[in-house]
Amino acid sequence: PVLSRSNHTITLFPGDGIGPQISESVKEIFSAAEVPVEWEEHEVYPILEKNGKTRIPQPAIDSIFKNKIGLKGPMRTAIGKGHVSLNLTIRRTFGLYANVRPAKTVPGVSTPYSAEGVDCIIVRENTEGEYSGIEHTVVPGVVQSVKLITREASRNVAEYAFKYAVDNGRSNVVALHKANIMRMSDGLFLEECRNVAENYPQIKYREMYLDSACLKIVKDPSQFDVMVMPNLYGDIFSDLTAGLIGGLGLAPSGNMGKEGIAIYEAVHGTADDLTATNKGNPTALLMSGLMMLRHLELKSHADKIEKAVLETLKERKFVTGDIGGTATNPQYTAEICRKIRASS
Amino acid sequence: PVLSRSNHTITLFPGDGIGPQISESVKEIFSAAEVPVEWEEHEVYPILEKNGKTRIPQPAIDSIFKNKIGLKGPMRTAIGKGHVSLNLTIRRTFGLYANVRPAKTVPGVSTPYSAEGVDCIIVRENTEGEYSGIEHTVVPGVVQSVKLITREASRNVAEYAFKYAVDNGRSNVVALHKANIMRMSDGLFLEECRNVAENYPQIKYREMYLDSACLKIVKDPSQFDVMVMPNLYGDIFSDLTAGLIGGLGLAPSGNMGKEGIAIYEAVHGTADDLTATNKGNPTALLMSGLMMLRHLELKSHADKIEKAVLETLKERKFVTGDIGGTATNPQYTAEICRKIRASS
Ligand SMILES: CC(C)[C@H](C(=O)O)[C@@H](O)C(=O)O
Ligand SMILES: CC(C)[C@H](C(=O)O)[C@@H](O)C(=O)O
Repeated sequence: PVLSRSNHTITLFPGDGIGPQISESVKEIFSAAEVPVEWEEHEVYPILEKNGKTRIPQPAIDSIFKNKIGLKGPMRTAIGKGHVSLNLTIRRTFGLYANVRPAKTVPGVSTPYSAEGVDCIIVRENTEGEYSGIEHTVVPGVVQSVKLITREASRNVAEYAFKYAVDNGRSNVVALHKANIMRMSDGLFLEECRNVAENYPQIKYREMYLDSACLKIVKDPSQFDVMVMPNLYGDIFSDLTAGLIGGLGLAPSGNMGKEGIAIYEAVHGTADDLTATNKGNPTALLMSGLMMLRHLELKSHADKIEKAVLETLKERKFVTGDIGGTATNPQYTAEICRKIRASS
Repeated sequence: PVLSRSNHTITLFPGDGIGPQISESVKEIFSAAEVPVEWEEHEVYPILEKNGKTRIPQPAIDSIFKNKIGLKGPMRTAIGKGHVSLNLTIRRTFGLYANVRPAKTVPGVSTPYSAEGVDCIIVRENTEGEYSGIEHTVVPGVVQSVKLITREASRNVAEYAFKYAVDNGRSNVVALHKANIMRMSDGLFLEECRNVAENYPQIKYREMYLDSACLKIVKDPSQFDVMVMPNLYGDIFSDLTAGLIGGLGLAPSGNMGKEGIAIYEAVHGTADDLTATNKGNPTALLMSGLMMLRHLELKSHADKIEKAVLETLKERKFVTGDIGGTATNPQYTAEICRKIRASS
């Protein structure tokens, strides 16, 4: 929506571990589908500043601010106390205030979970809450961490969730919370959700305790649609829903930032043990790429690729180890490209 | 273990909503099985003190301190800001530092979740963390809630988890955390888990991110055994595992307190809508009662009752609405009593 050029330039952060290999897959598949995009690739690594802060290389930053759109592979978490991980640094650098994680049953992927019909959207506040980074030792053996909730960030993420619902033809938004315990902080979050809900009379708004939602979603996922929640709850709940559909290897994600920036990313780890054999699963990064294409209003390209991916997953002949197959990433990728070319 | 009398006196807090009805069921079933206990019943309601604190009636408090053992039905959460719920007040009054919630597949209870073999024990820190109650507005629109982690409470709950594992013939303890984000607070929690683990070389100790554990348990619950975690994580995770076995109506719980106090409770709500027809499910309270009997070393009574309950659930002829049946609570209860008497 924000871009009007016909040929988009996308910033690509391939990341670590299997990151470069699965990024390669996405590029191949996009070019098989003749997606009108160009890639601007940047390496991202932590630069520790004197003040203890972490930053990422300036060319990577400039590229995102210029292109407004990025695709990001998994990045290794820096080891050691006292500095912030790359993932968090990126969220902060680009003011990525809303993290969107759709979870949808993938036909053919077997899970121990037999209920069909997982089809929900987790909208996670992505800048504050328990992720404030504010912690201190009161006296030895007594530590306090601060959960920070602001009206502004709550409103921004709520606004995004309702707008997402409208734009995507969805009719329910539920806010998850523990305002029975954190009355003031989760209370403020809910207050803003309610305020925003008033501007969207066409959307049914509900509230639910987080614990209760975890119970209910495993019993009957069909009752859930768009869900909005504070940062940590989103972290937890989106892994749960990823588990219900078969794992993080299938779970796409997008991050909405300030100045119209959007960065799409695979949220799984770097799976370093799979690089030597190139057996990583590129699906999550690819599906994140499809969210990105839809954001760029390249819907028909996204649909064509998605069809090929879903067919390949359903046939189960060329799928990767994490979802029960034996294929390598290049074999899986080649099959998707073949199907795309055959359908053109 | 702490008691040596042969006839135990148990404090009973029937609670609200379906509480009195399901408490009645437990008493009937215990007497059908000739369990050598006497009940001391007390009403519990919130008394709001001038300083804004909530307390419960003194006779209820005295009874627990005298008997050291209690069974508690669901209690209504007080509405309105600024005072603490009855459930939390009880946890604080009796220093209930560890909350134990077993989750075990119940044969015959159908869930959308097809994996058999959920059999894990959630040990939840029960006094601090996000439940500290410390919150304030920094400036309008900016709220901070404090997550409080102390070495002492962390050690107590870790100690309980490892001791539980040993006493119950279990061989693994996993600590759940987000120490990648809350490095100091969850870090301190982990530090104490590691310290305690050193004293239990026979138990395999692991650590896992909470989000990752949510994903993994829905993919393959068999990898989990005893799990120990801070307060809020336990709240969330135990509802998730309750969902995996079919709901809170089946999920027992026990709370370990100071001075050898133990209070067992159903963690579901008061289900006010079911009282008129007496269609509440007493299983969670009953199963909590069986945990209590084992704590009192009345193992053979507990086993006898458990056998009758599991058979009744498996036959599905007399089960309640929450797990897909049509029976009332008295019908279900009568069937369990019949089976117990038949087996004697
Ligand atoms: C890697 C970690 C910092 C991150 C988080 O906790 O947010 C991850 O779990 C996620 O969900 O993106
Ligand atoms: C009722 C509520 C205060 C409570 C909690 O959050 O601890 C409940 O969810 C529980 O798990 O016992």
